[in-house]
Amino acid sequence: MNDSTAPRPDSVRLSLDDVHALARDTLLAAGLGAPHAAAIARSITRAQADECHSHGLYRLLGYVDSVRSGKVERQALPVLTRATPVVLRVDARRGFAPLAIETAVPALIEAAKTYGIAALAIHECYHFSALWADIEPAVEAGLAAWCFTVGQCCVAPSGGSAPLFGTNPIAFGWPGPAGRPFLFDFATSAAARGEVELKRRAGEPLPEGWAIGPDGAPTTDPATALAGALLPFGGHKGSALSLMVELIAGPLIGDVTSRQARALENGDAGPPLGGELFIAIDPAAFGGETLGRRLAEAEELFAQVKAQPGARLPSERRYAARARSADGVLVPAGLLAEIHALNR
Amino acid sequence: MNDSTAPRPDSVRLSLDDVHALARDTLLAAGLGAPHAAAIARSITRAQADECHSHGLYRLLGYVDSVRSGKVERQALPVLTRATPVVLRVDARRGFAPLAIETAVPALIEAAKTYGIAALAIHECYHFSALWADIEPAVEAGLAAWCFTVGQCCVAPSGGSAPLFGTNPIAFGWPGPAGRPFLFDFATSAAARGEVELKRRAGEPLPEGWAIGPDGAPTTDPATALAGALLPFGGHKGSALSLMVELIAGPLIGDVTSRQARALENGDAGPPLGGELFIAIDPAAFGGETLGRRLAEAEELFAQVKAQPGARLPSERRYAARARSADGVLVPAGLLAEIHALNR
Repeated sequence: MNDSTAPRPDSVRLSLDDVHALARDTLLAAGLGAPHAAAIARSITRAQADECHSHGLYRLLGYVDSVRSGKVERQALPVLTRATPVVLRVDARRGFAPLAIETAVPALIEAAKTYGIAALAIHECYHFSALWADIEPAVEAGLAAWCFTVGQCCVAPSGGSAPLFGTNPIAFGWPGPAGRPFLFDFATSAAARGEVELKRRAGEPLPEGWAIGPDGAPTTDPATALAGALLPFGGHKGSALSLMVELIAGPLIGDVTSRQARALENGDAGPPLGGELFIAIDPAAFGGETLGRRLAEAEELFAQVKAQPGARLPSERRYAARARSADGVLVPAGLLAEIHALNR
Repeated sequence: MNDSTAPRPDSVRLSLDDVHALARDTLLAAGLGAPHAAAIARSITRAQADECHSHGLYRLLGYVDSVRSGKVERQALPVLTRATPVVLRVDARRGFAPLAIETAVPALIEAAKTYGIAALAIHECYHFSALWADIEPAVEAGLAAWCFTVGQCCVAPSGGSAPLFGTNPIAFGWPGPAGRPFLFDFATSAAARGEVELKRRAGEPLPEGWAIGPDGAPTTDPATALAGALLPFGGHKGSALSLMVELIAGPLIGDVTSRQARALENGDAGPPLGGELFIAIDPAAFGGETLGRRLAEAEELFAQVKAQPGARLPSERRYAARARSADGVLVPAGLLAEIHALNR
């Protein structure tokens, strides 16, 4: 990881308030409704603060593309319903996901704290944000939580030859340590499609095992891979997890698979339509009197991971970035120019 | 996979009733209580029928070791309690897991069908059976279900140098197609410890990426690996999943981590003490009127996987074996002799 505390000549320092205002105003100028613009601006600001650059201000370009292409409902307000006391559903009405998530996650937290476990399905949303951020509020409220969503359909099943699954990320969070909870979020593909695109631009070969060509044969050539398919991470095990995500963020909750979503795509630079499933569990349901000891045992486990040189916890880089970002973030000047051009 | 329909001179054909009786009577003769002996015999018979040989009659040897070593409670009956309407707990009272699972899974199914989602924690059990079988009844009852348990502590975190995690399997099942539901069950380690042991006996090197030696350096030598640690499957992603299993089958529910369990081990050939977490979701909770269409969409997805030459669904081999086993299974004569020797 680069030391990003020293400004570089090609970057501009912005406060987090500046990032938020820039994102919000750009989305408003593109015609997006104010509640959506504010929710997406919060999502982008958190990603930028954590130096998840792909989901920070860079994402504005794709968000604006999807507003302009007309596929996303600009004003639709999400509608929360309860199928049962512990199964919540939000119809995002073909709007972007962040407002639906902000609308529903407090109800998920309340249901999980009342009953011990609860599920939340977001329906008919365009999900373009970082998955870890979707469950962070539930984790900060003291819950263990998962979320799952289908991604762009570009992944072949292990042993197969053509795209059938999305990049299908999985996020999981544990409510500790306080202020820096254990939280991971990864694509079930060997790599993100954007990483392949970056290799293509850089003229670099792909690592073995990332992709196959249109003929189904393994390839390390980025262009051949982009015409073919990515592979799941971890062989048949990652492939099984990817198929699981298709099932539980698709047919389980009544939303589309990544292949069905692809058929609806209009070719803009934004996200595909889809659903998202959250599951949250309250550790206190397994005994309030032992909760402190159990959380301490989890922290001991995290300490044992970190005590092994070379091992690290998934969220550590993000928390280090977050601490650095308290007094501002560095944004590439070229990206800022692209964003300002959107507002013209 | 070998064609096991033709008897070999070194194997004996047994009916499934014979397998069940042999397992039950061997456990009874070792001194195990009748309800446990019957539940384990059912578990062993199902694994043998599905040609999961490691969890079939072969497992009797380890079960008997754990009865004889005194670590397992022979008579303890599991006690089911409800923390909430959707959080169930079973105290297995240091008995083997199958009886606790048979006791509690019907209540899990009922809770998930009533409320849409439910969790079940098995506490203080010795888990030595195949994880897919634990959730199969819930899946056959129409639910999507997961289960997680910690395994023997022999896996280093990705980038690390010493055992800290168990083999920590994950199983997931989807309620279709009828009679042959999609169901996977895999260790989050790159390989099972038994596979390394088999390579050692055969004098064969390990594939790259399976293990490290006691010095933390990658090794392909089985003996060095057994003295060192296995690695997670799929690099940092599999490592994160393994840590997730430690958390949710350990501190979340109030049970031991694999490292804590190792400190309690007595060196017999049986399983470590631990907990198990089940989560079950009823697809009907997301709309009874659309359930048929959604299950059909899932089956279409399975068909699309199978239509790609080289790709397969995880449970297909087991179902083919199950069909073959209707009129009996082949058991190695040497294994039968070992089992009969236990009864002398």
